[in-house]
Amino acid sequence: MPIIILKDVHSDSVLPIWVGVFEANAIALEIEKVTPPRPMTHDLLKNLIQGLGATVERVVVTELRNDTFFACVWATRNGEPLCFDARPSDAIALAMRTDAPIFVEEEVLISSRISSDNAGRITADDLRRWIEGLGEDEPGREPS
Amino acid sequence: MPIIILKDVHSDSVLPIWVGVFEANAIALEIEKVTPPRPMTHDLLKNLIQGLGATVERVVVTELRNDTFFACVWATRNGEPLCFDARPSDAIALAMRTDAPIFVEEEVLISSRISSDNAGRITADDLRRWIEGLGEDEPGREPS
Repeated sequence: MPIIILKDVHSDSVLPIWVGVFEANAIALEIEKVTPPRPMTHDLLKNLIQGLGATVERVVVTELRNDTFFACVWATRNGEPLCFDARPSDAIALAMRTDAPIFVEEEVLISSRISSDNAGRITADDLRRWIEGLGEDEPGREPS
Repeated sequence: MPIIILKDVHSDSVLPIWVGVFEANAIALEIEKVTPPRPMTHDLLKNLIQGLGATVERVVVTELRNDTFFACVWATRNGEPLCFDARPSDAIALAMRTDAPIFVEEEVLISSRISSDNAGRITADDLRRWIEGLGEDEPGREPS
């Protein structure tokens, strides 16, 4: 299962988010600046927002509940702010296509750490060490 | 690979469209009226369109080029019609969530038949016969 790693620009904080293969692919296509012959679903999302005169201002990972992340796409139209509920993967795929910044609520970072510790799973720190230690020969290895 | 079968309301015409697993799932969820705990990508599409004050009027499969279908999502906002390029699978998944009608350009139906015949593959008629003959025990069998 693919993981998105959100890394804070100003600190060592990282937030790993497990996402679906389709959503990971939508993000990877944009990272690699691949232009598909027909608009993919998240390209259609972007085109619709822009075609309807709105702008994506930012996306925010707002909540972690029962090990599930929730997010919000903040857009404006004619100066009016609008929030649309989204999964973080869709929000991030859209942010990358619209050059919008990605934010994470501080509480989500905190409860993400608690949740990981409680479940006896990897912490953000473990994950960071694992990523830093990743060799090119083992791109798909699971964190241990 | 999943197939969407578009069937004309007023005739025997059918149009088979091969789609990705993700898009097929998005359509199946809506057919089965499953409400996921978080908005899936096509729910976000619908929410964005409606939240930005627009209405999906219809979706149209507009073209078949190099064995690839192209479609358009027609929306209106303040009476102004807008067309958004889309893949048929996204357009259909959106149409089902907005109760919008699905149209196919006559030329697409004609070239779909020609294309199928030329390629020595199944025709729409073959497909119809195959679907009508499908038993419940063999839901996944390939058309022969």
